[in-house]
Amino acid sequence: MPNLREIKISEIDRINVHGRTGRQLQPLPLFFNGSGIEVTVTGAELWVEVETDSDNLEPWVAYEINGAFMGRQMLLPGTHELCLFRNLEPSEPKTVKFYRELQAVSEDERCQVLVSGLKLDGEFLDPPRRSRRIEFIGDSITSGEGTYGRVEDTVWVAMYMSASVNYATMTGRELDADVQLISQGGWGVYCGWDNDVRHNLPSVYEKVCGLADGPANEALGAADHYDFSFAPDAIVVNLCTNDNSAFNQPPFTTPDGVTHKQHRNPDGTFLKEDERKVEEAIIGFLRMIRRHNPGSHVVWCYGMLGYEMTLTITRAINEYKAASGDENVAFLNLPNTTPDTLGAHMHPGPKSHEKAAKVLADYLRMQMGWD
Amino acid sequence: MPNLREIKISEIDRINVHGRTGRQLQPLPLFFNGSGIEVTVTGAELWVEVETDSDNLEPWVAYEINGAFMGRQMLLPGTHELCLFRNLEPSEPKTVKFYRELQAVSEDERCQVLVSGLKLDGEFLDPPRRSRRIEFIGDSITSGEGTYGRVEDTVWVAMYMSASVNYATMTGRELDADVQLISQGGWGVYCGWDNDVRHNLPSVYEKVCGLADGPANEALGAADHYDFSFAPDAIVVNLCTNDNSAFNQPPFTTPDGVTHKQHRNPDGTFLKEDERKVEEAIIGFLRMIRRHNPGSHVVWCYGMLGYEMTLTITRAINEYKAASGDENVAFLNLPNTTPDTLGAHMHPGPKSHEKAAKVLADYLRMQMGWD
Amino acid sequence: MPNLREIKISEIDRINVHGRTGRQLQPLPLFFNGSGIEVTVTGAELWVEVETDSDNLEPWVAYEINGAFMGRQMLLPGTHELCLFRNLEPSEPKTVKFYRELQAVSEDERCQVLVSGLKLDGEFLDPPRRSRRIEFIGDSITSGEGTYGRVEDTVWVAMYMSASVNYATMTGRELDADVQLISQGGWGVYCGWDNDVRHNLPSVYEKVCGLADGPANEALGAADHYDFSFAPDAIVVNLCTNDNSAFNQPPFTTPDGVTHKQHRNPDGTFLKEDERKVEEAIIGFLRMIRRHNPGSHVVWCYGMLGYEMTLTITRAINEYKAASGDENVAFLNLPNTTPDTLGAHMHPGPKSHEKAAKVLADYLRMQMGWD
Amino acid sequence: MPNLREIKISEIDRINVHGRTGRQLQPLPLFFNGSGIEVTVTGAELWVEVETDSDNLEPWVAYEINGAFMGRQMLLPGTHELCLFRNLEPSEPKTVKFYRELQAVSEDERCQVLVSGLKLDGEFLDPPRRSRRIEFIGDSITSGEGTYGRVEDTVWVAMYMSASVNYATMTGRELDADVQLISQGGWGVYCGWDNDVRHNLPSVYEKVCGLADGPANEALGAADHYDFSFAPDAIVVNLCTNDNSAFNQPPFTTPDGVTHKQHRNPDGTFLKEDERKVEEAIIGFLRMIRRHNPGSHVVWCYGMLGYEMTLTITRAINEYKAASGDENVAFLNLPNTTPDTLGAHMHPGPKSHEKAAKVLADYLRMQMGWD
Repeated sequence: MPNLREIKISEIDRINVHGRTGRQLQPLPLFFNGSGIEVTVTGAELWVEVETDSDNLEPWVAYEINGAFMGRQMLLPGTHELCLFRNLEPSEPKTVKFYRELQAVSEDERCQVLVSGLKLDGEFLDPPRRSRRIEFIGDSITSGEGTYGRVEDTVWVAMYMSASVNYATMTGRELDADVQLISQGGWGVYCGWDNDVRHNLPSVYEKVCGLADGPANEALGAADHYDFSFAPDAIVVNLCTNDNSAFNQPPFTTPDGVTHKQHRNPDGTFLKEDERKVEEAIIGFLRMIRRHNPGSHVVWCYGMLGYEMTLTITRAINEYKAASGDENVAFLNLPNTTPDTLGAHMHPGPKSHEKAAKVLADYLRMQMGWD
Repeated sequence: MPNLREIKISEIDRINVHGRTGRQLQPLPLFFNGSGIEVTVTGAELWVEVETDSDNLEPWVAYEINGAFMGRQMLLPGTHELCLFRNLEPSEPKTVKFYRELQAVSEDERCQVLVSGLKLDGEFLDPPRRSRRIEFIGDSITSGEGTYGRVEDTVWVAMYMSASVNYATMTGRELDADVQLISQGGWGVYCGWDNDVRHNLPSVYEKVCGLADGPANEALGAADHYDFSFAPDAIVVNLCTNDNSAFNQPPFTTPDGVTHKQHRNPDGTFLKEDERKVEEAIIGFLRMIRRHNPGSHVVWCYGMLGYEMTLTITRAINEYKAASGDENVAFLNLPNTTPDTLGAHMHPGPKSHEKAAKVLADYLRMQMGWD
Repeated sequence: MPNLREIKISEIDRINVHGRTGRQLQPLPLFFNGSGIEVTVTGAELWVEVETDSDNLEPWVAYEINGAFMGRQMLLPGTHELCLFRNLEPSEPKTVKFYRELQAVSEDERCQVLVSGLKLDGEFLDPPRRSRRIEFIGDSITSGEGTYGRVEDTVWVAMYMSASVNYATMTGRELDADVQLISQGGWGVYCGWDNDVRHNLPSVYEKVCGLADGPANEALGAADHYDFSFAPDAIVVNLCTNDNSAFNQPPFTTPDGVTHKQHRNPDGTFLKEDERKVEEAIIGFLRMIRRHNPGSHVVWCYGMLGYEMTLTITRAINEYKAASGDENVAFLNLPNTTPDTLGAHMHPGPKSHEKAAKVLADYLRMQMGWD
Repeated sequence: MPNLREIKISEIDRINVHGRTGRQLQPLPLFFNGSGIEVTVTGAELWVEVETDSDNLEPWVAYEINGAFMGRQMLLPGTHELCLFRNLEPSEPKTVKFYRELQAVSEDERCQVLVSGLKLDGEFLDPPRRSRRIEFIGDSITSGEGTYGRVEDTVWVAMYMSASVNYATMTGRELDADVQLISQGGWGVYCGWDNDVRHNLPSVYEKVCGLADGPANEALGAADHYDFSFAPDAIVVNLCTNDNSAFNQPPFTTPDGVTHKQHRNPDGTFLKEDERKVEEAIIGFLRMIRRHNPGSHVVWCYGMLGYEMTLTITRAINEYKAASGDENVAFLNLPNTTPDTLGAHMHPGPKSHEKAAKVLADYLRMQMGWD
């Protein structure tokens, strides 16, 4: 590789950085699934330099050439030089995207993906400039859990999650929009699937990546306040699947000794006061989202793993609308996952994500006036 | 046809009558699209005898053999003997369904389809007994408007409407359920597409067929109170598309001299007091539906021609739930019609109905515990 | 209908007549499935006048408005006035096609469909002029057998056959080409499915409609030599499915007392001398087709009900090519029918016809340079 | 990784080796795309050890867990330890397949993929035993060229080829059959796309991997006579696309100074004597295939990139059949690639491979009596 020159990622002007970043830009942390870098280059060859660490949840990464999926692999702790292409026609521009497949990790403090630089024998051109931006806030569905693996595979491991096969990514591609994902499997808007009330997205939304714990991530700025510089045109919230699940799960005692449990009435319906907690969390979250994104259209999507909280969510949205006068918020059911669209780990499979992306992209096209 | 014997429709014991009927059973009026008769017979040949009348809106009818669509035709005023099959193997049972394609008609007092009898050379066997029953209440979408004809065909005529290509029928077939349709193109839950407040489904829901006017229909019992003998397991209400449209249309003056108009605010949102009229109509209609169908699951479906009233509808449903304590009511978005699923007259085409039926059947399968 | 004027079919200048016709033009016989008339008219209303006769095989007809399927029905013996549309916008041009669904009939001498005239309140405009013409020569597949009815329906009756759901029609629509069908269920290129050697298409190809027997059809010119005025750009021969079947069937004795039987060797392969009969029939038929259609591309299609004779057919085509120097002849497998694409009477269903039409239209588009 | 034990690949008894191998088993060379190893193991973790070399054509590899695609990556020269899974439930059996994506390479003597061993913390169980075996012999189509990358990507590079998205692999999966691929992009049965007569598959078919040149590959046994131990039930030959191309390309002079060129007549048809060369090559190749696979059903498939040589191929097959008495050979068109199924580098894309696999699997199911 005699003609390759090495460039620090922070020194590249013509680059798209996807996903939230904080104070550290060199090396550049990829916190969320879908977070990544995108460049358009000439030359025959391109390499990316990545430093990773992890304990039990090793990161997976994927890459695209000119918008087509090309590779996907696990990165175990260490420094990696990955060749993204070789032997391509030097004079032709190539757009390459390198991104994280694994969701932000709250169970493995060591987990990190840091892009330190690129090596290439060509020049940087302007990368694609997209005029549309969409933020997705969600749970395991938005983390792409189950988009890889067989229906029979039911262990919870890193390799079954992805941004490469994911309704959020598909929606962005369909609409030629930049997307930003903030999601966590098992979490809700009020509590997690297991009644753990600490596991709610609002608690982390205002930080760069409130899901990545520990001193190492802190040093990367994960715990810093996010500057909300993405300024999305539309925000898709896809939450409440785990809040719903909590009604079916045993109580959970948090470290402070308090026991939490969402209850059902004897007839199976939600106990009103527990349902109210979810509603208040939704209302609070909408306020928070609006505070940081004054001009964004907000659509709460729900249904890919069951429709039971539809009326709960819409009640909260309507209450928020009435109280705030905010009319730029909406609700949309996404089609439920069925046996023929199921993926691994009892989660939506590739076909379910495709169906959801179709409905959502159609919605946004109409709502946003995007042709 | 030497061996054919003629039997009055009212004298057939082993028969399924689909759709609402009133006091008159001989000849049997088919008031709604999807209304019809279904028999299982032996013999080589089967005929149906029908009397029809109409002025500008001639009825269309269709028929199925063993569940497969076989024919569809216009019936102009007169008495008709239609051969439904010939030369089939006499000993084999054949299940035949003959049904109305055209919605109940509120603009043509003469329009009638009366089944007077059957002629056959075989015997009647027990027709299919389905343990599931679904009622559909809707507008032009449920009337199948645009399911026949080309996208370019934009005149409003009888031939573009159907029960043969219709999400309601498809849902019934998918779930092996009997279905009953009550629908009217252009009508809403509060007002019609053109702000005509007389055109609301609640005003006709309690009559056998409140849409069929005039002395002739009155004589058939159309204006009589319906006895709600269908007792559906589930009721699908697919309304508000026209209520939405009214916000975009000029005022309408009813014969009593009152002018009606649903307004938007300068920013395009609904004027609250006008939106409230729709909400109150929804709440009132849910009360009415529940009064007559105490055990039915009620799901309000919406979205096949736009999602704008989603939060209005859910607000009303939630208010109804809170006031009544009724927990057996739900909301579900059906996928919007897109350019690739559009039918004639700017209405959902066959592919849109198929997609809606898939989502709805999946919903009902899960909600009702129907495997 | 005060403003309707009646016009004899033979007096209409601006009309497309689809399918072969002979000396009689008034009333106009529709001999084959897909045979019909097509007009573009203004006015609010259009009627077609048809005289039909039959014994056991009653004709079915269908009609399209602006290219969209609208109706399909059985016509029992008598004179019929069928309204094809009403109440359409008078000033807008409407293109209407009325056509025969039932194949040409060789088992019912009385079977006839005669179009005598039209009634309308508008004017005739120029009907669509298509620059592409395709002739299809086939058996039950091209007669659309099984395209209506359930998979379980296995009786051979008229209602299961069609031109409305048929790969030939679909191919024509996809390529915007006029199509002409000559087909007969159970017939082959050498013999019928049951070893009846009289049932071969070459024996009738040179007559207007050699399949329609009896004095009544003779009077219509069915037995006359066809003038080959259609001059197709491409000819699709879809034969040998029944020639293949004959190898599995018992012997057949023709009225002349001769017994015919196609044999297999003990190992299941075709007995060479019997296979040779099929090859010679193919070669002879190709010569006949070429003699009457000197400029047409001829493609022999095969496979929708099994691939076993592929090498037999191609052997014969190659021998014909070598002997004649004719290079404008080709072979193409169409995809076999599978359990998920099966129709009634063990024949290709709608999905199988769609798949075949896709492959064939793609072939013709490339071969003919049709964009 | 304290509990991992390392096992040489040659010392594993319970393993499926896919693809041809020669005398060297340690480390195990993967010569062809689709060549690989498959094991069923318990334990939480599995690693594969691979040694690779290459110059301009770096190998790509892919892996599946329980039949689901999991990862795909480039391997540059060196020794690699790839983790195939981690943290899975130790007691559950996992079936893992690790295989080569890149076709056998004839342009890069250094190109090698050698599997030296596995590391795991579990036990080996019996891997899947499949009773069906299919061999595929082909060109760039069977090398999966264009199955990765965008339609606009037209450079010839390793990363666009695959076994992971490939009609051969898909057919095997659909039929639960082991498959073995022998293919080379640009090669034909008589000559390559550019008239290079050295580039014909028959010349390499009898060697373990006659495509892999040079002393290093020779040392692996690539040039040795293959023992034909695979004993396939069916052999799919998918050749002649490049033989066809040669008729459109300029002459090629081989190193011996002889110039080769396939000619067309002025009317565009093949010059008979040049077409004859292809036919003789087909006949010779069929003899060779039969000699080494006496009991296999042989089906020559053709059409995924154009149908022009259909009659040439069938003529040769028929001549071979007549001369040899071999009746266990057939021909089948696979559907041509169309603009909507095109992949990168003007080759069949994923959808085209899926369509071909459907037709081929249906054929084999019926022909082989495979339910």
